[in-house]
Amino acid sequence: MNTDKYFASRRTIRKYDTTRDIHASAIMEMLEDAAHAPNTGNMQIYSVIITKDEDGKKALAPAHFNQPAVMNASAVLTFCIDLNRFSHWCRINDTTPGFNNLQGFTWGVIDASIFAQQFCTIAEMNGMGTCYLGTTTYNAEPIAKALELPEGVIPVITVTVGYPAENPEISDRLPIEAIAHLEKYHLADSAEIKNIYAEKEALPSSKQFITENSKDNLAQVYAEVRYPSEANEKFSQVYREFLKNQGIQI
Amino acid sequence: MNTDKYFASRRTIRKYDTTRDIHASAIMEMLEDAAHAPNTGNMQIYSVIITKDEDGKKALAPAHFNQPAVMNASAVLTFCIDLNRFSHWCRINDTTPGFNNLQGFTWGVIDASIFAQQFCTIAEMNGMGTCYLGTTTYNAEPIAKALELPEGVIPVITVTVGYPAENPEISDRLPIEAIAHLEKYHLADSAEIKNIYAEKEALPSSKQFITENSKDNLAQVYAEVRYPSEANEKFSQVYREFLKNQGIQI
Repeated sequence: MNTDKYFASRRTIRKYDTTRDIHASAIMEMLEDAAHAPNTGNMQIYSVIITKDEDGKKALAPAHFNQPAVMNASAVLTFCIDLNRFSHWCRINDTTPGFNNLQGFTWGVIDASIFAQQFCTIAEMNGMGTCYLGTTTYNAEPIAKALELPEGVIPVITVTVGYPAENPEISDRLPIEAIAHLEKYHLADSAEIKNIYAEKEALPSSKQFITENSKDNLAQVYAEVRYPSEANEKFSQVYREFLKNQGIQI
Repeated sequence: MNTDKYFASRRTIRKYDTTRDIHASAIMEMLEDAAHAPNTGNMQIYSVIITKDEDGKKALAPAHFNQPAVMNASAVLTFCIDLNRFSHWCRINDTTPGFNNLQGFTWGVIDASIFAQQFCTIAEMNGMGTCYLGTTTYNAEPIAKALELPEGVIPVITVTVGYPAENPEISDRLPIEAIAHLEKYHLADSAEIKNIYAEKEALPSSKQFITENSKDNLAQVYAEVRYPSEANEKFSQVYREFLKNQGIQI
């Protein structure tokens, strides 16, 4: 594959060169290209809000648990499901779309994700660095407030972008044979599962996580410290309520 | 942007050259590169099932409403949320993940989408053509049966891939200014909405859709013919039930 070089060696960039700005017009250009990525029925039920302003970043930072990348980045991009624009178009055309349900939500998440990823690929191929913030679905409401999102607009993904000020190692991945199944799903047994995760568990960073968090193993760090059940349940309820207030009943 | 050429001119390919196969090993290689795309917490809670077998494609075809791309493609790729592998790993490490909720579902959809899109970009950059089938969230259950998906594995996206046997026009997109908002969401008024959709409405293909479906305008074609409320509501319920049966309660 002649594209190997970039794709297999890409890495997430969390520290940006604050002396190098990316102009809003360059971001718009990249988004314009990214919007050529596929989307459900070519309805484009998504929007993105570009935050470049210092005050705008400050307003978003707490919703992202003050991750330094937010203030540090040239821009913060919040990718949203957008049923508002499409519904408005339907309204002035004497019809009503029925997308305020689980199908509409799922299409919106898929389309916003594809759009966001295409943007990241374009930015990275042009020498910039990007980072997805996993906090958007936790704190959708304060994000919506800060960005003045109307009914039907749901934050799904946040990406920070800037020129890299770090050169991190390539992040580990599970063996592709564990992820990609030929013809039928292969249900791994416990011995296979151990093998699949062996390399990840052996990383120095994994051992450090375990020690720092006083756990017995890496799985416990994930399930009990980084993504504890109670938090996931709580944030699920918060997100569901927010969706309802924005007019989507999943 | 030096990546302009590809990204802004990409198009969906639905007809494939059936004399040119893509070997399973080449697909695995591309997937391996694609898996370097970002994912939530590097947990990789996704899987992909590659269908190359004639019988396998035949089993999937009805679930995709017999779209010709399924039988025609070199391979059909079903991208899934996969909580099964991660849960199994947690189980043998004396812990239990709490991802069987809306947060886990949303992360899974985001991660499966990013992975799928990265695969599509790699395939397209290597001269292949891809097509997303929007039918996966409608018919998740028969797809799961055909692919023998266990508990915790949810089909989200299907991509067909093959060498192109057509060279379609670049598909239209809304003006980027309607999609990308600087600093705050700009709520368009009805005059602006009309402008945003004017070019799309003026396309010969749009006019053809309206005539063929005996509707007054394009919005009605979308809201009443292609994505009618009743179907969206019905398929939302079917998907929700399927998720519940697979162990995810959104």
